[in-house]
Amino acid sequence: MEKKELLFDGNEKQIYATDDPSKVIIRYKDVATAYNNIKRAVFKGKGELNNRISSIMFAELAAAGLDVHFIERTAEREQLCRKVEPVPLQFAVRNRLAGSSAKLLGVEEGFKPAITVIELTYNCDDLCDPLINNDHAVALGIVTAEELDSMYATVRKADAVLSELFLKAGIELVDLKLEFGRTADGSLIMCDEISPDNCRLWDAATGEKLDKDRFRHDLGNIVRAYQEVYDRLVKAKEA
Amino acid sequence: MEKKELLFDGNEKQIYATDDPSKVIIRYKDVATAYNNIKRAVFKGKGELNNRISSIMFAELAAAGLDVHFIERTAEREQLCRKVEPVPLQFAVRNRLAGSSAKLLGVEEGFKPAITVIELTYNCDDLCDPLINNDHAVALGIVTAEELDSMYATVRKADAVLSELFLKAGIELVDLKLEFGRTADGSLIMCDEISPDNCRLWDAATGEKLDKDRFRHDLGNIVRAYQEVYDRLVKAKEA
Repeated sequence: MEKKELLFDGNEKQIYATDDPSKVIIRYKDVATAYNNIKRAVFKGKGELNNRISSIMFAELAAAGLDVHFIERTAEREQLCRKVEPVPLQFAVRNRLAGSSAKLLGVEEGFKPAITVIELTYNCDDLCDPLINNDHAVALGIVTAEELDSMYATVRKADAVLSELFLKAGIELVDLKLEFGRTADGSLIMCDEISPDNCRLWDAATGEKLDKDRFRHDLGNIVRAYQEVYDRLVKAKEA
Repeated sequence: MEKKELLFDGNEKQIYATDDPSKVIIRYKDVATAYNNIKRAVFKGKGELNNRISSIMFAELAAAGLDVHFIERTAEREQLCRKVEPVPLQFAVRNRLAGSSAKLLGVEEGFKPAITVIELTYNCDDLCDPLINNDHAVALGIVTAEELDSMYATVRKADAVLSELFLKAGIELVDLKLEFGRTADGSLIMCDEISPDNCRLWDAATGEKLDKDRFRHDLGNIVRAYQEVYDRLVKAKEA
């Protein structure tokens, strides 16, 4: 599949057209950003690792019967995906509360709630991506209530599938951000990226952070942590 | 019922014990506050009007079969109520989006969504009363998921009942804040206040604001607007 014109140039990824109008190539950059792009740095090797990790994640979800945009990894930093119209919602599945949600509710970092908490964010730069609820998403006409129900079911299943895989790799999936897109026929499939950039991943034994919080909080060894996640996932998949 | 010691001294209301441990007297002050108590003023007559209006509201909900704290109005600024342990949640029922919710979603003031939007706020001064979702409320252990379902059903019914009454009075119920409390036996009943202080009320014909936005936005004639709401409700009830 040939890479054609650049359709979207994001902070950490680019999307290219291909000669098939229903498919795109997603290219992972070696860039890390945080706090709405206020903090920004280049980490050689990060793009390749996120591409590899995200490919494993989506392949795992597809194998579990979930609809995803990912088709195949095509190069070190590239993957072929189905083309979708992004739905401006982000689902944050929180098996523990950390970061913004711990702050929001005034609980300690890593608080383990009795239920898995799912948050909905409205992806809108002008409004600073506010936390919204289901009624808001329907009121804005982004999705119907029925679509939302089905998206929640998908998100819960994805969390269960990926938590299990990570646990085999000795990693706790603390939280996970998921996005959906619409294909040309209107159906909703999971898209975007699933990697240490948008999941919180803690070593199951030591609690060591193996994700973007290393960048956010200047903990160092970012690429080494992402490499560790990838190596452990490969081993877990082989086992 | 004799008024005994002061149990709670709020910005706009006080709660007194009575000689019956299951009952309290709520006293409405002539004070208006806004923006988390940053804006504050005294309006003679407001306490009496809110006491009268809130009494009509809760009596209407009770007549519709809903459980409320209100028992009877006992004085110009006082009402006898069942004693409850407040649940730190506020339900905002929005028939139109105005104020904070219009700003949150980037829609114009008065946007009419295809569905009635209900928002949940965590009443916590230290956290500035954040907007939360159902999972958060359950994760914090404030309510169970089943209790929350039943509260939403109550809130929807209350909105329908009060919207109908207001419409008879030529007023559109734009939004409505509702709170719940637990009685000694653990059951959840609606409590607090329902008045122009915590509802948005627009003249159904002209759109004129007849609520606390007159105070928030310095539109003047606050007590006159509240008096107008009360007079129209009395007329609508008599009709």
